[in-house]
Amino acid sequence: MHTYILRFFLLFAASATNLCAQMPIYQNPDMPIEVRVEDALSRMTLEEKVALCHAQSKFSSAGVPRLGIPELWMSDGPHGVRHEFEWNTWNYAGWTNDSITAFPALTALAATWNPEMAARYGKAVGEEARYRKKDVLLGPGVNIYRTPLNGRNFEYMGEDPYLAGVMAVPYVKELQKNGVAACVKHFALNNQEQWRGTVDVEVSDRALYEIYLPAFKQAIVEGGAWSVMGAYNKYRGQHCCHNARLLNDILRDEWGFDGCVITDWGGAHDTKEAALNGLDIEMGSYTNGLTSDNSLGYNLYYLADPYLEMLKKGELPMASVDAKARNILRLIFRTSLNPNKPYGSLCTKEHYDVAKVIGDESIVLLRNKGILPLQADKYNRILVVGDNAVRRLTDGGGSSELKPKDMISPLDALRALYGDKIEYAQGYACGRPFFGYEEEIQQTVIDSLRAEAVAKARRADVVIYVGGLNKNAFQDCESTDRKSYNLPFSQDELIEELVAVNPNLVIANISGNAYAMPWLEKVPAILHISYLGTMGGASIADVISGKVNPSGKLPYSFPVKLSDCSAHSFGEGAYPGIDTGKEDVSLTDYQRNVGVNPKEEYKDDILVGYRWHDTKKIPALFSFGHGLSYTSFKYGKSRLSSKTMDEKGSIKVTVPLTNTGTRIGKEVVQLYLGDPVCSVIRPLKELKHFTKVEVEPDETVQVEFVITPDDLKFFDEASHQWLAEPGVFNVYVGTSSADIRCMHSFKYICD
Amino acid sequence: MHTYILRFFLLFAASATNLCAQMPIYQNPDMPIEVRVEDALSRMTLEEKVALCHAQSKFSSAGVPRLGIPELWMSDGPHGVRHEFEWNTWNYAGWTNDSITAFPALTALAATWNPEMAARYGKAVGEEARYRKKDVLLGPGVNIYRTPLNGRNFEYMGEDPYLAGVMAVPYVKELQKNGVAACVKHFALNNQEQWRGTVDVEVSDRALYEIYLPAFKQAIVEGGAWSVMGAYNKYRGQHCCHNARLLNDILRDEWGFDGCVITDWGGAHDTKEAALNGLDIEMGSYTNGLTSDNSLGYNLYYLADPYLEMLKKGELPMASVDAKARNILRLIFRTSLNPNKPYGSLCTKEHYDVAKVIGDESIVLLRNKGILPLQADKYNRILVVGDNAVRRLTDGGGSSELKPKDMISPLDALRALYGDKIEYAQGYACGRPFFGYEEEIQQTVIDSLRAEAVAKARRADVVIYVGGLNKNAFQDCESTDRKSYNLPFSQDELIEELVAVNPNLVIANISGNAYAMPWLEKVPAILHISYLGTMGGASIADVISGKVNPSGKLPYSFPVKLSDCSAHSFGEGAYPGIDTGKEDVSLTDYQRNVGVNPKEEYKDDILVGYRWHDTKKIPALFSFGHGLSYTSFKYGKSRLSSKTMDEKGSIKVTVPLTNTGTRIGKEVVQLYLGDPVCSVIRPLKELKHFTKVEVEPDETVQVEFVITPDDLKFFDEASHQWLAEPGVFNVYVGTSSADIRCMHSFKYICD
Repeated sequence: MHTYILRFFLLFAASATNLCAQMPIYQNPDMPIEVRVEDALSRMTLEEKVALCHAQSKFSSAGVPRLGIPELWMSDGPHGVRHEFEWNTWNYAGWTNDSITAFPALTALAATWNPEMAARYGKAVGEEARYRKKDVLLGPGVNIYRTPLNGRNFEYMGEDPYLAGVMAVPYVKELQKNGVAACVKHFALNNQEQWRGTVDVEVSDRALYEIYLPAFKQAIVEGGAWSVMGAYNKYRGQHCCHNARLLNDILRDEWGFDGCVITDWGGAHDTKEAALNGLDIEMGSYTNGLTSDNSLGYNLYYLADPYLEMLKKGELPMASVDAKARNILRLIFRTSLNPNKPYGSLCTKEHYDVAKVIGDESIVLLRNKGILPLQADKYNRILVVGDNAVRRLTDGGGSSELKPKDMISPLDALRALYGDKIEYAQGYACGRPFFGYEEEIQQTVIDSLRAEAVAKARRADVVIYVGGLNKNAFQDCESTDRKSYNLPFSQDELIEELVAVNPNLVIANISGNAYAMPWLEKVPAILHISYLGTMGGASIADVISGKVNPSGKLPYSFPVKLSDCSAHSFGEGAYPGIDTGKEDVSLTDYQRNVGVNPKEEYKDDILVGYRWHDTKKIPALFSFGHGLSYTSFKYGKSRLSSKTMDEKGSIKVTVPLTNTGTRIGKEVVQLYLGDPVCSVIRPLKELKHFTKVEVEPDETVQVEFVITPDDLKFFDEASHQWLAEPGVFNVYVGTSSADIRCMHSFKYICD
Repeated sequence: MHTYILRFFLLFAASATNLCAQMPIYQNPDMPIEVRVEDALSRMTLEEKVALCHAQSKFSSAGVPRLGIPELWMSDGPHGVRHEFEWNTWNYAGWTNDSITAFPALTALAATWNPEMAARYGKAVGEEARYRKKDVLLGPGVNIYRTPLNGRNFEYMGEDPYLAGVMAVPYVKELQKNGVAACVKHFALNNQEQWRGTVDVEVSDRALYEIYLPAFKQAIVEGGAWSVMGAYNKYRGQHCCHNARLLNDILRDEWGFDGCVITDWGGAHDTKEAALNGLDIEMGSYTNGLTSDNSLGYNLYYLADPYLEMLKKGELPMASVDAKARNILRLIFRTSLNPNKPYGSLCTKEHYDVAKVIGDESIVLLRNKGILPLQADKYNRILVVGDNAVRRLTDGGGSSELKPKDMISPLDALRALYGDKIEYAQGYACGRPFFGYEEEIQQTVIDSLRAEAVAKARRADVVIYVGGLNKNAFQDCESTDRKSYNLPFSQDELIEELVAVNPNLVIANISGNAYAMPWLEKVPAILHISYLGTMGGASIADVISGKVNPSGKLPYSFPVKLSDCSAHSFGEGAYPGIDTGKEDVSLTDYQRNVGVNPKEEYKDDILVGYRWHDTKKIPALFSFGHGLSYTSFKYGKSRLSSKTMDEKGSIKVTVPLTNTGTRIGKEVVQLYLGDPVCSVIRPLKELKHFTKVEVEPDETVQVEFVITPDDLKFFDEASHQWLAEPGVFNVYVGTSSADIRCMHSFKYICD
């Protein structure tokens, strides 16, 4: 008979020790991440693996609750952290803690041509995402600007793959320091919104590798992006969200991507392809609306019950779900399960400063016949005209819409600077408020708005016009393309009437796209401005007043007319594609893009943007890289360190830059290379390096670039390799792609 | 003229270094928490401090977004983590990731008399709260069970302050290891639900300190609870959520509490009192429903704009808001800003095991005339009768309602054990489904249910009756008290009819309260079961079948009739109080408890529960501490280590306990002390120690207790001190408060 003694406190002391269970390997942050992934995977059931692979709500996917592996919470992206949604709907959840800093659009970031701005952007938006408990921020977007009609260009970084890639890298790196994954989108060839769900893009390998993929590759390989969002469209007849070539061959095999591929919302269309072609997480499929039991809805996803069943039946390999689970676990370990992630913050002064300075550096002074900066003492009556002077441009536009805590409108900011001198007239109406009214009434309202503006302009000393596009459908807005290259809402007529009564007209148009300017020669000053968010009005007013010296450069060309743009030079087959689908397409079919089946051939191939204008000798209205300053810069005599370069060599280019004006300013010095004789067609020149440099009056800065053999290469389709052919190469250094200040040649020597 | 050289990568490298900003002191987990609190406080604006002090949504309060200080997310509590709510409403948010483990009710935990169970409970529910990203779990509840009519007793831990305190401590400690704060509630004197919003409790200091506060003190001082929830009711004419004596004098000054006081939802009523009387965070005030702009609603809270205004006008001291902000920051640093907190987990096997074993140990075998455990081979037809055999008892009941991922009903579990032998009859209806029907139809349904059950019982070999209370209003449900001590839904008549046709009747009643048993002598076996959550059915079936040997002990007395209960022995003035308020009370007034003004005098003073039964010699139906086993225990000859004790001494009590039955079992050995001669009235005896011990058949265990002078003390109102008077003390060791197996005396000697 065994005798022992027990007392309460002994019992409890013992149990407390037992409670300190050993930490499992997968939760141990000191273990290598791959060991943790394998350990977690080994503990999971098939059902738990499959549950990782699809949404559980509008913006989250499941973790493994039983194992304490957290969920993934995602948010649009990329210009700020989007509001909270109801679990199963697109209704706002009505939270009041989700007001954020609206940062400038990515087009604005690109227009700064300043990677430091991208780093500060990524850091700030990452801090906001982390504070909002988001693990994945759906951005940045690096699709190439191919046509000014694309409703989503404002979310991308322009027409040049090198510029977009260089700007994406620091954004991704700094964002991810917050334990928030970047999700580089939309991979790939999503260069228009029309028919985006079905358009099947045909493109040469050269254009794919040279134009449409480099920014993705740079964001992923150099930036280390932890996730990638598949595009809605097709490539080679297969949807990009489960496209064997894009995801298996290129992203995983060629680039070694070990992160997560996430669909765009509703971008998955087939279980087998989704299982085998590199997709990891399926989000936003439309099935979740089909059942009254929402949780069942998510189970109907392609990568949910249908996948589970095929796995169980042996119709799909178990290795497929293990591969996905590994990628998803890796993403979770990098984000929500990273114990060293910071706590983030929201709407800090630093974030507002970042938004402001990016806005400042993004504004492009396209034209200035001396009227800018506006001197306050010269004018008593300053008229501000235009809906965009007061409109909340963070509303609308699709998934990038934002709920900013604060917003400074251009009118507010101008009033703060110029006080009672400011008068305002709306000038034009945006259609939307008149929706449903008789056309006649609409016309009356439009006429009276215009008459009021013109009458006020006649009495004013100077007129500041703040128009452009906005975030309504068929403007700068997801899911639709623009219908016309001209400014909407009859703004061209309004501008003509305004300048007729008052030649002191400053155009400060807000737009994420190029547009026609039939009135160009009549107006003395034009500012091109992207969507700048919270601090946008202040940036605009500061550039107009001269408090800020503009330094933005166009990240895309302004063609004179649409047909001057490469995508529009080959007929409908090149844009938007030709629909070979059935004719009786229902609304539901339309929403799901079922039955429509357009094919589009990128006939412009590698000649996109300035590559087209340059090579085809079609002058742009304003060229890629163009942007003026309130000071002037003189490019001195530049030097090459050598006139020849071999495969292991490099050439240093030195450019003396002098500020010959009277105020401090920043200039973006751009280096392009051209290969005039090659076995394949090459653009006249391509951007290979740039640097933004601040120069004081009378100061001379020596700007240096180093050219290496990689800068000379093209993608050779036959060998599937990057090659440079020996021979003469041209070096162009300039202040824009069309304003080259010095040109050199050197000889490339190789076997 | 200064010349310098810049290149892109240099520029970026420099900026990347700048981005690694210094970590501010308040975010540095290596700094002492008080230093961090002061640092954070010094950076905050007055508006930010006030924003900490009130809700921003139904279940969250703001952090300081600008400084990256996280919000606080709270959840009911205490039996599992409650579902997600819409931001501003009591509607469920419809999330599908919030299904949890439903743990047994706290009354069940108390009935285990096993602190190890409390530790495992706290650990498990804390892991679930952490996985669900909750920072504060609203529990445990340690209000004293004063009347079996209290609709909320199931959330508390019985009638004895020592038992409740001992059980609360490990729950709090283990919960908080997850970085989730316990919120000990409802502080204090919230011993009934009727008129809870206004009832003004009058109680002696002795009863307050000896009966109603000790479990709070133990949870806070020994358990180290980080937050406390104020009660709805009044004490000394002042609402408990901003009660100067309870919060300033006792909680903060006497106990040294440095955590956060949070209102019960809607428990604040006055800005000045809330500012000055120890409250920190105001939640759930009804004002948020008064405006169409919800955020404005929260600004109308007593501790929101009205507080801010009075602070600004100098009508309230700035020190008041600094004190609150310190307490709240401290709570944030302990929870959401604790980088070492684990990740939690949801619905693990371990959690289910914890729920199961607590359920197993909580079931009290009140009576057994040999029929239990039910031997499967003895019966061919087993009839299960009763709504609670199938009802989801996690629904309803108020804030402790739960959305369990899994639920095993008693009927499911019995079917799993006994298979086709099981038949079922509902037997009675719960009123609710018939709401609105003609009384006549209701009666017909009730009659037919009863007739069906009786007919089936007649044919059965044995009947298992699973009835009791449920979570409907006026049963075991927040905000209402029961209307009758008898079982509801005419169950007494049903039981009488069943036992009349089949004497093999096992009563397995589920209830969070005691109830009358007019049929007691007729039935051979009675199990008293609390709400056991996810695994409840399995625990019940396992005890019935004998797979589990019951070891629960009553944490509260079962009076024979209501008037035998102390609170009901002094008329309405002692319960529920006498209303001196106005007569025309509107619904809104009722909801907010405006205009009603009941006063209640705790005339039973310190004689609550068994203290009343013992002292007044009113035998209970079943006594505090009672609970049988399927084995039998013999208490051997116990010994005291000494017959005298002085102020610095102690006495060891040794009790040999032998399992004289044939199966392993657990017994709770209880030690009570009595002070038969004292200058103040003392209860006959009071629980001072207990231990639960597992004993094998024929094994003898030596159970030891150590009595110290603190065990002898009463609260002396005149000196406001705990005193023990010299003289003879009685030691009672027993298997329940009414079944004492050995008694000793010793002499306490002091100056």
